Parts: sequence; C-alpha cells; structure tokens
Amino acid sequence: MELAKRLSKLGTETAFAVSAEAARHVAQGNRVYPFHLGDMNIKTPDNIIEAAYKAMKDGRTGYCPNYGIAKLRELLAEDINRSHGTDYTIDNVVIQPGGKPTISKFFMAMMNAGDEVLYPNPGYPIYESQIEFQGGIGLPYTYHEGKDNFELDIDQIEKKITPRTKLIVVNDLQNPMGAEASQQELEALADVIRRHSLFVLCDEAYFDIRYEGKSRSLASLPGMVERCLLLYTFSKKFAMTGWRLGASIGPKEVIDVVAKLNVNDESCSNHFIQYGAIEGLTGDQSGPRRIVETLRERRDMAVSMLNSIDGIRCFNPNATFYLFPNVTDVMKRKKFNDYEQFRKAALSETGVSFCTRLHFGRPLPGESQSYIRFAYSGIDVGDIEEGLTRLKEWLES
Amino acid sequence: MELAKRLSKLGTETAFAVSAEAARHVAQGNRVYPFHLGDMNIKTPDNIIEAAYKAMKDGRTGYCPNYGIAKLRELLAEDINRSHGTDYTIDNVVIQPGGKPTISKFFMAMMNAGDEVLYPNPGYPIYESQIEFQGGIGLPYTYHEGKDNFELDIDQIEKKITPRTKLIVVNDLQNPMGAEASQQELEALADVIRRHSLFVLCDEAYFDIRYEGKSRSLASLPGMVERCLLLYTFSKKFAMTGWRLGASIGPKEVIDVVAKLNVNDESCSNHFIQYGAIEGLTGDQSGPRRIVETLRERRDMAVSMLNSIDGIRCFNPNATFYLFPNVTDVMKRKKFNDYEQFRKAALSETGVSFCTRLHFGRPLPGESQSYIRFAYSGIDVGDIEEGLTRLKEWLES
Repeated sequence: MELAKRLSKLGTETAFAVSAEAARHVAQGNRVYPFHLGDMNIKTPDNIIEAAYKAMKDGRTGYCPNYGIAKLRELLAEDINRSHGTDYTIDNVVIQPGGKPTISKFFMAMMNAGDEVLYPNPGYPIYESQIEFQGGIGLPYTYHEGKDNFELDIDQIEKKITPRTKLIVVNDLQNPMGAEASQQELEALADVIRRHSLFVLCDEAYFDIRYEGKSRSLASLPGMVERCLLLYTFSKKFAMTGWRLGASIGPKEVIDVVAKLNVNDESCSNHFIQYGAIEGLTGDQSGPRRIVETLRERRDMAVSMLNSIDGIRCFNPNATFYLFPNVTDVMKRKKFNDYEQFRKAALSETGVSFCTRLHFGRPLPGESQSYIRFAYSGIDVGDIEEGLTRLKEWLES
Repeated sequence: MELAKRLSKLGTETAFAVSAEAARHVAQGNRVYPFHLGDMNIKTPDNIIEAAYKAMKDGRTGYCPNYGIAKLRELLAEDINRSHGTDYTIDNVVIQPGGKPTISKFFMAMMNAGDEVLYPNPGYPIYESQIEFQGGIGLPYTYHEGKDNFELDIDQIEKKITPRTKLIVVNDLQNPMGAEASQQELEALADVIRRHSLFVLCDEAYFDIRYEGKSRSLASLPGMVERCLLLYTFSKKFAMTGWRLGASIGPKEVIDVVAKLNVNDESCSNHFIQYGAIEGLTGDQSGPRRIVETLRERRDMAVSMLNSIDGIRCFNPNATFYLFPNVTDVMKRKKFNDYEQFRKAALSETGVSFCTRLHFGRPLPGESQSYIRFAYSGIDVGDIEEGLTRLKEWLES
C-alpha cells in the first residue's frame, strides 16, 4: 500500500494537537483554562433545536437538492442583501455542510495547478493547506500592528502580485488576529483586486459576531460582487458549530460549479437541520443576541486581564472571538525564545491553554514581534478571570 | 473570472436531470411513478430520531473530533467484525458526512496523477467522475448476464491491468445492476488483487439491504483487510439518506489520512446525529427490519410485473433496491434505437420514470444488449403495481 504523493503537501489545524495536550493535562488531574480552540460552549438556541426536531418528525430525512432547500437559499440571499447592500437571489446561494467546505471547493472551482494565491499569514491554516494540496502556490501576506488594530499593508500585497497571481483569500474580521479593515483599507484592497483581475475567497465566518458598529464586506464595494465567493456559516452567530451548516454565495457561474462539486463530494447537506437554520434566520432573535452578549462580557474580561499583565499588550477588537496579544516583552523577561516552550510552560504552570503564532502559518522572514492567540468562545467569564489571574501571577513572578 | 480547467473532467449524477424532468411532468398535472432515484420514501425509525433530538438538547451541538465520536467508532468496528469476521478496532474507523465522501477521500489518499483505476461500468457514476477529476485514468470493467444474476468476468479484469494499475473499485451488491458475486467470484477477484498488489475501494453501501441469505465482503477473504477501504453508510439500512452519515473503515494508516482530509474539508460530521446512529446500531432493531420487509414487498411486485411484460427479462436480486431489466427485445419491438427517446416516451405515455444504462457510465464498445434501471426505494408497492401496469399496457400495445 502506497499513499498518494501529494499528501506531503496537505496541512492541518495544529490547534488540535494543543487540544490533545490540554486533554492529557486534565486527565492527569489538573485544571485547564481552554483558550486554544474556536469551539463554543454556548448552547444552540432552543427554537432552532425545536425546528430541526420538527423537520425530522415531519419526514425531512431523505435527500434534499444538492443546492440545499430553496427556502433557506432565498432567506439567506435576502439576509446577506440586507447587511451587504447586494442583489443576490436564490441562484447565488448553495448550502454547504459547514463553512470550511467553501474553502476546498473554491480552490477546486477557481485554481489551476501553478496559479499563485495571496492568503493571510498569520491566518486560518486551512487556506495554505488547500492551496498547496491542490497544486497552487501560496503567497502569504501579513498584517502590521497599528494604533488600535492590526492593519493591512496594501503595498506589500500589490508588490507580491505577478502575472501568475489569480486569486486572493480575504478574511476581514480575522482569525487569529481579530483584525478589521477600515473602509479606506477595504477600498484600497478592492482597487488592487480590480486592477489585477483577481478573484476572491471572502471568508466572512465572523461577520455577525460583533460588539460595536457594523461589519463591512468587501463584496459591498463597486465591481466586487462579481469577483467574490463569500464563505457564510451558521456556526458562530447561532452557536451551531457542531451542526455543520454553511453556504457559498457568489456569481451563479461559480455557484453552479460548487453545486456540482456537492454532487461529487457529499450529495447534499443534512436535510432537516436546514429547517433549524430557517428558524434561526426568521424566528426569535433573542438567541443570537444572547450569544453576542455572552461573548462581549468574555472579551471585556479577557482584554482587561491580559492588558493588566506586565509585558503583554492586547487590542480590543470589535468583532470575532479572538485576541492576538503581543507577548514579545513578557517572553523576553521570562527568558523564553521558543513559542512552544512558552506555551507548554504556561499550560503546566497555570493550566492556561492557548495557541501561538505558529499555529497560523509558517513564520515569515523578519518577524520581530511575538504573538499568542486566545479564543474566548469556549470558556466562561469566571474561568477567564481565574485562569488569566493565574497566568498573570506566573508571568509577573 | 476563469473557472479551473480540470472542471472539464468533473462528472455528475445525470439521474438528477431525470428527477428534474419528472418534476416538470408532475407540475404539468401528470401522475409520475418515480423509479429513477435511489432516495427512500421510508421514514427514519422513531428511536433514532429521538436519540438525535436528546443529544441536541443535551448540548451535543459543538464540534466533535474529526474522527467522529469514539463510542460510534467502537460500535461500528464491532458491528462490522460480526458481519465480516474481521478484527477492526476504533483505530480503523473514521466517521464521514455520508457514504459518498469516502469515494473522493479514497482517491485523494491513494491515487497519484496518471495512476490507472479499475471501476465498474455500468456503475455508480461518481467513481468515474472522481477518478478523472483527480487526475487518474479510469479502466472500466463490466458484468455479464449469467443464468440468474449479473456476473463478474475476472479474466476481462485481469487483462486490463498494466504496471500503472494501482487501484480497483469493487461494488458488490451493485448499483445499478443489483449484481452479487458468488463466493467463488469473490475469491478469484481477491486472487487478482493480491497478485497485482491493488488497493481496493470496497463500496458496501447496500450490504445490509438484503432479502435472503447473508452478504459477503471481499474484506473477509485472506489478505484483503489490509488492502481494502470499506465505504459504510447509515443511509440505507436505517433510512437515513438525508442525514448524511457514514464511515470509512480500513487500515489505520489510511484512516489517519482520511481523518486529516476531514480536518481540511469539513472539520467533522454533525455531532448530535452520531447519537442517532448509536441508537440505530444498539437499540430496537424493529426499524431496520421493517425497512427491509417494506423493500422486499416492493421488489417482489416490481420483479414480477416487469417479467410479465413481453420482451423484458429481469433478475430477482437478493440485495440492494435496484433492478436492471434487459429491454433489448421490447425496445426493438417498439422501434426505439435510442435510450433517451425510450425513457422520455415512457415518461410521457405512462408516467413511469426510470434511468437507463446511460446514467451509469459511458457505454463500452460492443454492447449488444439494452438495459434500464428501476429503483424501488422511493415508491410504494401500490404505485409500483399501478405504474408498471401502465408501462405493460403501453409496451404491449
């Protein structure tokens, strides 16, 4: 038996290895404060659960169309049009078993072997993995630390573009940095995309996880709607991570290809849970409001605790459930040169479990600052306070 | 915007086009007898629905491991060991969102560009599509009409093998033919596989849909367990087609790759429906028994009606829910040279909707006999009788 050669190019989410270490630490009788994974310990709203159950009982247990059920596609187009100012119709929406399938299908639909693809690094590691596994060439672009936010460097992005550069992944409201582009940054980015005729995977997984202001979409800018495939997911807004339900939204020509890939890869998404999603979009909205309120309380606690630690500075992002504090000074003071040593020592000394910059792409040449990532979606506010107090005591001792 | 070039090699299930035609015929006020799709009009057993609902209410709504939940993997290994005489453990099982994902991931895990892959034709069209889309070369093998069953031609298979032939797809209890290999045929096939060091995608989607006797697996034969990746699905046995739940079962080395592909493609399968599957495997078995009894009654009616039509002969398969009658004589008598003309005329004259040989792969040189495919999983026994009576009247008129 010989495995396929291209598997050498397949990456993974190394955060899962951190989960496994945390689980071992618990099994040894220790307390763990889980900041490492973007899963949620918040329940799916009851009205969504009941709607899915009713659909099961009503016999929605056979296949549905490979595009997903029509009602959900229509509602999602309307929902996106309201927030994005677009004119999507049912023809622009295809339901997916989660947010992630849009990533692999985007590259299957749009990328030829040897095409260059711009993608964020630090960034969600599946972009890099799928680009390389499917025969593309990844061009990482990075963010810079601004005054109160991580910022795009548009010149840096444009300088990397060659005639072979065809695609760009944009993940505004970003994992792991919590970065959010200003209107000006988005417009400059759109300008580059237009001038170089790029097509965009616009990952909007965190569009609705927001504490102040209003999320902006690249797709709302002139000439962008025909150049963007949006990644939509029900996972975060409705605390439905384990349901595996999302959608690809974009030009009909691309949607039809994605739907044909559905036929080949999984036939369709689970039928009855789509009725849960309809209830989510149209029913009582106290559930999603409660989810955002819960997350806001956690963010406030985590940001204030982290900034109280000598040698750590942390932005206060208005969206996502991630923090990406700069730990350069505290690592120096505690004499850590190595991310992994720092992470493991924090776990064993304090029980606080987090990912580092290394879990979000290969470090780029010239990186002088050090960052770690905290996700606060899976840990209650009391445990955030307790865990980060322990971390502070250890780091300041 | 330019779509990826390799999309020209992506196939589909053309049966969906037949569904669309049938739906149009209904919309025009006509009665349709749906024999074209392998979906089921039988409800999922209540105990499975209630177990999934309980899991939702219990908060199994976050991510589960990319391998699937441990209890389900263990139970499935035990279940397969009982029917196959194997020694699989939890390490040999990875849960999938349906049966189909095992097909695409098998080729991602095992096939290099340019590798040759033997696959059945007529056969499930996704094999051919995935082989070619992923850069392999398909070598179709066919079946011959025996005395009371379609039979493998082992010599034909062996003659096609070259040094570049690495893989074979085996779909015993076959869609669309309902073919089932004898113990002797399976042993001869295993012998060829061993001698040429092939690795096998062993599609056992219909293993438990059986009316007499006991299903046999290629994986039960000496030396085969280390050469087979089994495709398992909950769809048919438990009438869960729309739930999208299945598993890949095989050597740990391959399972680990498939699990890594899960991380890249969809993170994990829906969490709470896996508790429904646990209830399916361990709870009250009257549900799956009722499903097989219902299907048996339909098979008996459909086979007897088809064989009563002058110029049609149809085997009586002991497994699957498909029939593949030989219609060479009746097409000749009714002066049809073309499958599509025959199919469309039957729909418009009688409302009976079926697929033909053309929906299951490109016809091979030298095919002298004509076949159509009837699925009886989505039509009640009374409608089978009524529809096939109309078909008989039209064909004998």
